[in-house]
Amino acid sequence: MKIYDWPTGPYPARVRIALTEKGMESRIAFEKVDLWKGEHKMAGFLKKNYSGTLPVLELDDGAFIAECTAITEYLDNLDGNPILTGNTPREKGEIHMMSKRVELEVMDAVSVYFHHATPGLGPDVELYQNNEWGLRQRDKALRGMRYFDSVLQERPFVAGEKFSMADITLVGGLIFATLVKLAVPEECTALLAWYERMKERPSVAKQLALKA
Amino acid sequence: MKIYDWPTGPYPARVRIALTEKGMESRIAFEKVDLWKGEHKMAGFLKKNYSGTLPVLELDDGAFIAECTAITEYLDNLDGNPILTGNTPREKGEIHMMSKRVELEVMDAVSVYFHHATPGLGPDVELYQNNEWGLRQRDKALRGMRYFDSVLQERPFVAGEKFSMADITLVGGLIFATLVKLAVPEECTALLAWYERMKERPSVAKQLALKA
Repeated sequence: MKIYDWPTGPYPARVRIALTEKGMESRIAFEKVDLWKGEHKMAGFLKKNYSGTLPVLELDDGAFIAECTAITEYLDNLDGNPILTGNTPREKGEIHMMSKRVELEVMDAVSVYFHHATPGLGPDVELYQNNEWGLRQRDKALRGMRYFDSVLQERPFVAGEKFSMADITLVGGLIFATLVKLAVPEECTALLAWYERMKERPSVAKQLALKA
Repeated sequence: MKIYDWPTGPYPARVRIALTEKGMESRIAFEKVDLWKGEHKMAGFLKKNYSGTLPVLELDDGAFIAECTAITEYLDNLDGNPILTGNTPREKGEIHMMSKRVELEVMDAVSVYFHHATPGLGPDVELYQNNEWGLRQRDKALRGMRYFDSVLQERPFVAGEKFSMADITLVGGLIFATLVKLAVPEECTALLAWYERMKERPSVAKQLALKA
């Protein structure tokens, strides 16, 4: 299998961390798509993924699976033991809910801020920006951090008692926040302590050690 | 179990159609949350779902599962035969990808258009609007319809050879487009023919017959 991505990208990080957690890295070849040149918005790549986002997984028969949630759902189920996306209906429901909530309230909000209210990937790639919308999303992301702090005051992991894709998605969100210099508010002590624990996991440490 | 929703809402429709497909309606009680009064944005409801969106599923022990993808993942797996979200890793991956793509390219785009570039739910609920962003998303939704038309020229269902949550999500998207008077372009003959076939399914016909 092959993954098209930009190694240090926050969305690619979600799949790379999941691969390490599953011990599957050796089964994957990686091919770089240069975000800073906008290669993910060019016709050749859009044939792989209409939405023009990274990462994309190519299966051995040439089929493509895009979207982090779909890629990790596929990979996590290959061995019949989906420890990251949930083994029971309830775990699946709760992990999907919290992963989606992380996307809505933090990760995608930071992304919109980056692409619309900062120089983003530069003028050749950011062909349309809506500054006001970007700033609203920055504020939403900060509120989202406070919400996840309240969640992590009550439980050790984002979706409950076990590490899951919801944690990996929030790690991706904080990787993105760090890249755009959007600091987690100091008073979010539970969120900050959780992030320190996450950084101790070999999968996260390995990702954070990558150079672009 | 109980579902909090607005019966004719496009997102609630996704869960209601899935319930009918699974023959599970009799296991669910429904409670209305009045979108037009903004009840989904009020403190009482935000305790059930931080994101303030409908629908939300309440389990018998009082736990809440929000987000259509999470609710349908839970419900579809309860009987150990997830016909709507995929039985194999590959089906799961492809269905999740296409459902997410429908959200990104059609359903959520129509939603942003509705809430930002039309009167939406009215001035008491729509406290901030970004008209320019709403109009961009309207244009994105129309491009998305053309994309799904190209997909449906090649295959009978959105995610391949079988009916799945990806079809239900696109039905939700076209229900929303109809509500906001955003017509599917006439030349999208495969998409329009697919929608006619979907309307013949009892689950979709039942949803479309509901009155607000």
